[in-house]
Amino acid sequence: MTAAYTQNLDKTPANHQPLTPLGFLARAARVYPNHPAVVHGAKTYTYAEFYDRSRRLASALSKLGIGKNDTVSVMLPNVPAMLDAKYGVPMAGAVLHSINTRLDAANIAFMLDHAETKVLITDTEYAKVVAEALKLSEHKPVIIDYADTEFPGLGARLSDVEYEDFIAGGDPEFAWKMPDDEWDAISLNYTSGTTGNPKGVVYHHRGAYLTSLGNTLAGQIGKHPNYLWTLPMFHCDGWCFGWTIPLVGGTQVCLRYVRPDAIWASLYENEITHLCGAPIVMSTILNAPADAKRKLKQKVQFLTAAAPPPEAVLAEMREAGFNVTHVYGLTETYGPSVVNEWKGEWDALDGGAQAQKKARQGVRYVPLEDLSVIDPLTMQHVPADGETLGEVMFRGNVVMKGYLKNKDATDDALAGGWFHSGDLGVMHPDGYIQLKDRSKDIIISGGENISSIEVEDVLFKHPAVQAASVVAKHDEKWGETPCAFIELKPGATVTAEEIIAWCRQHLAAYKCPRHVVFNELPKTSTGKIQKYILREMAKS
Amino acid sequence: MTAAYTQNLDKTPANHQPLTPLGFLARAARVYPNHPAVVHGAKTYTYAEFYDRSRRLASALSKLGIGKNDTVSVMLPNVPAMLDAKYGVPMAGAVLHSINTRLDAANIAFMLDHAETKVLITDTEYAKVVAEALKLSEHKPVIIDYADTEFPGLGARLSDVEYEDFIAGGDPEFAWKMPDDEWDAISLNYTSGTTGNPKGVVYHHRGAYLTSLGNTLAGQIGKHPNYLWTLPMFHCDGWCFGWTIPLVGGTQVCLRYVRPDAIWASLYENEITHLCGAPIVMSTILNAPADAKRKLKQKVQFLTAAAPPPEAVLAEMREAGFNVTHVYGLTETYGPSVVNEWKGEWDALDGGAQAQKKARQGVRYVPLEDLSVIDPLTMQHVPADGETLGEVMFRGNVVMKGYLKNKDATDDALAGGWFHSGDLGVMHPDGYIQLKDRSKDIIISGGENISSIEVEDVLFKHPAVQAASVVAKHDEKWGETPCAFIELKPGATVTAEEIIAWCRQHLAAYKCPRHVVFNELPKTSTGKIQKYILREMAKS
Ligand SMILES: Nc1ncnc2c1ncn2[C@@H]1O[C@H](COP(=O)(O)OP(=O)(O)OP(=O)(O)O)[C@@H](O)[C@H]1O
Ligand SMILES: Nc1ncnc2c1ncn2[C@@H]1O[C@H](COP(=O)(O)OP(=O)(O)OP(=O)(O)O)[C@@H](O)[C@H]1O
Ligand SMILES: [Mg+2]
Ligand SMILES: [Mg+2]
Repeated sequence: MTAAYTQNLDKTPANHQPLTPLGFLARAARVYPNHPAVVHGAKTYTYAEFYDRSRRLASALSKLGIGKNDTVSVMLPNVPAMLDAKYGVPMAGAVLHSINTRLDAANIAFMLDHAETKVLITDTEYAKVVAEALKLSEHKPVIIDYADTEFPGLGARLSDVEYEDFIAGGDPEFAWKMPDDEWDAISLNYTSGTTGNPKGVVYHHRGAYLTSLGNTLAGQIGKHPNYLWTLPMFHCDGWCFGWTIPLVGGTQVCLRYVRPDAIWASLYENEITHLCGAPIVMSTILNAPADAKRKLKQKVQFLTAAAPPPEAVLAEMREAGFNVTHVYGLTETYGPSVVNEWKGEWDALDGGAQAQKKARQGVRYVPLEDLSVIDPLTMQHVPADGETLGEVMFRGNVVMKGYLKNKDATDDALAGGWFHSGDLGVMHPDGYIQLKDRSKDIIISGGENISSIEVEDVLFKHPAVQAASVVAKHDEKWGETPCAFIELKPGATVTAEEIIAWCRQHLAAYKCPRHVVFNELPKTSTGKIQKYILREMAKS
Repeated sequence: MTAAYTQNLDKTPANHQPLTPLGFLARAARVYPNHPAVVHGAKTYTYAEFYDRSRRLASALSKLGIGKNDTVSVMLPNVPAMLDAKYGVPMAGAVLHSINTRLDAANIAFMLDHAETKVLITDTEYAKVVAEALKLSEHKPVIIDYADTEFPGLGARLSDVEYEDFIAGGDPEFAWKMPDDEWDAISLNYTSGTTGNPKGVVYHHRGAYLTSLGNTLAGQIGKHPNYLWTLPMFHCDGWCFGWTIPLVGGTQVCLRYVRPDAIWASLYENEITHLCGAPIVMSTILNAPADAKRKLKQKVQFLTAAAPPPEAVLAEMREAGFNVTHVYGLTETYGPSVVNEWKGEWDALDGGAQAQKKARQGVRYVPLEDLSVIDPLTMQHVPADGETLGEVMFRGNVVMKGYLKNKDATDDALAGGWFHSGDLGVMHPDGYIQLKDRSKDIIISGGENISSIEVEDVLFKHPAVQAASVVAKHDEKWGETPCAFIELKPGATVTAEEIIAWCRQHLAAYKCPRHVVFNELPKTSTGKIQKYILREMAKS
């Protein structure tokens, strides 16, 4: 050891600054002041204007007394104000809390109280549910209405202050400061609540910065992309794309309503190069009415998560000029932090084999330092055999700070130096992971693990089945047995016995449901099936 | 302030890991094990092999007792061992010191002592100068010879241990560790010594990681680039490209001798997409014999630094299928950290106007947090008028830790929260900087600043002048006056009076040289003119 390296080589402001995505916008405004930054209907804001608006927002919030570690909540669809907020709120030192716009009043009230919201910016379209929530909440934040001029007359006003007037009162030269530390909170995002009550995930500046860089690599995003907002901007902070796109000087095209004709019109007119969304967005695109569809000149990159993209969808997407990249992550990992990194050698495979490769969640993002499948009891890595089930665990700089006001859940989630995702998967011999189930959803019958996803896959293939979900039901003899809940296609009929017989044709006997229930499936506001409710139903 | 954000949200190994480029190779080896990582002549190493070799090197060094903060020096041209070293040395916890292979024995000896080198890996081609250096140095490192099998029989052996045998004794499964801290030293690079004695610049893992990400953005480097090593791998750690290319799963093509036929053959055969170098490399490419040149199918990105690319060269490069990006930086900033970010709107300009835009050094890299032109006395930013001269200063995460064993120089360089580059420049109204001179090279005559570059530009245009350099000469009346040193073209003749008359035609009188000396210009081993030697000569 040469002691010289430990002496007089300390951090100074000259060689050490906090990592933060806020600088992405400042840089883009300097380098590309006239490039379109945000498009919304007939409106276009240049980077100079976008930066100006964000600083005005930061300034106006500061004048209200908002500062470090204050929560500013927003209840906004995919509109420019939401993008302003991604910069303006942290530029005031505050923490941005984006509310899922499909939540009900009780949920919203719970979050306003839990987050201790000081200011709420809310779109007039949601006035009714928000007014109700404000009656329920103990916390009474300052309200600022956002009345979308591109869609006038939606909903009602809840306060005297409209967003545009509010920021007009702010200083466009506002001297925003870098965070004191890159570990400082930048935003708060609640989980979807698929497995229980939503938890408040706290993001830091460092992770937001690094996820953005990771997105450019995973999504193959070069200079000046045209990005269409089909992903909700509130969902995991829009996977950090509100920060990612200014990093590469791109144009963000807002989309208030994610409807097929609007998507196709924008793809064509705005020469969209990149977009993101759950597989449902791909279906929306593909199932659009024929006269809405357009022949696109550009190649479009589509990043999808939430579920593996099905083979038929992949083939149709390719046909329509899209390249689909499968990514995976959780609210706790800033959205995607795992990518199905595609290998050139796979291009030679047939459609089915390609879809199998693409169904795997993949490998770590560059800024995720480690990803593995681990036995949560022993904390040993499972063998890379594509078969042994374990819990998918993450380690690195794109994992949340923790859950707000929930030390126990935080400690559990980060126990043993790894973030426990609650997703069950396998490690393939080539180092790619694949999800098999959620740990809470696995069914253990007579000591054997049954993947609820495997059973659901078989049910899905039955011609009468529209949707299906399988959960564990307590059983005296076996411990648990599979119980299937099924939504039928319009007009279709089938009996429980026929369903069970179908399963027996395709599955080992012990994996077949013993009980079959026909009813509508309970879903979260993001469209995920709430198995914990089905488990309650299975008890009775 | 919501106190909740400050409680129970601490760093753990699950959500905080040191940033380091070492993981880039580990990731590439997992994701693209069979992709070519390193090509050298007829040899190709896949990523699995490259990772294997690097870990063997780390292991073999560890067995020698090398560990944290030990210096491992390398005297290597652009060969695979040098790339191994960029990973293997820090994977052993040690610090990589790359020696400029054109240095003389006295300089090398100075560095071995100053760096307290424990192990020296040296190419047999340099045996003579290295043997001499080892006689001069007080420090006697362990020597490992590198005998390039692609160029057999060069030079002589200095030890019993050859590199390939050395790493063959290492463990390919060596469990390298992440650095304890991202602030830990990763490498040591001496400055070129243009302005005096070279200083030992210490890089840290964080900066190397971030510069690599910055390079992918500045150089528009997508997935799987083919990179040709025309830049010396030792120069500012090869601008961090040895780390940058594995980050994007690319192929690094080594080039032992940077000669026109070898460059063109490689451009063609290896389908090179990216390369870097000083303007001299562009001249080498363009002035290659006609039968060496090939029509390339691919578009090639060329990153150039050290001096602004001249208009004629830009035009010829475009013609030949290259896109030139102008970057700027110093050893102290990990190589380039400023980029002439090109705007689409400039494409419409004519060649001359485009060259003028491209001559400007530009704007900060994404991971450089701030860049400005500042009056070093008042530390005030100069107005963005394109005229007021100031010192170019950098602030951010891609600035060195400091100079090894040189607290005074470190403190001076990082004073006031900015890194002082010693380069003089202006800030243009659009936020792009442009260099005008080095602060040590400016001439102050009768209180007026004279840019030596401006005078040199005029001299360069004289038909008889091959090279020119202008320095200050002490003067009783004016304080300083310009003194010109000139190398003539072969066969050309011109008098001092004619030169001065030429200057009077093109420059304000006070800027014209009072003295003209005809002689060969002293240069550093990287080909830069050593003005401090000329200043000494001007005294007499
Ligand atoms: N590519 C994918 N393939 C399969 N499942 C995915 C994929 N991407 C995400 N998921 C699922 O989504 C989950 C993350 O969703 P999110 O963070 O929005 O909330 P949630 O986990 O559904 O809700 P809660 O944590 O409140 O129960 C992952 O844990 C995983 O189960
Ligand atoms: N694009 C460029 N245009 C003009 N000059 C450049 C450019 N890039 C680099 N330079 C010059 O090169 C310098 C950095 O070179 P380097 O760090 O290799 O050593 P040096 O500064 O020449 O040597 P020393 O610091 O020992 O005197 C910069 O300070 C600048 O003067
Ligand atoms: Mg979850
Ligand atoms: Mg220098």
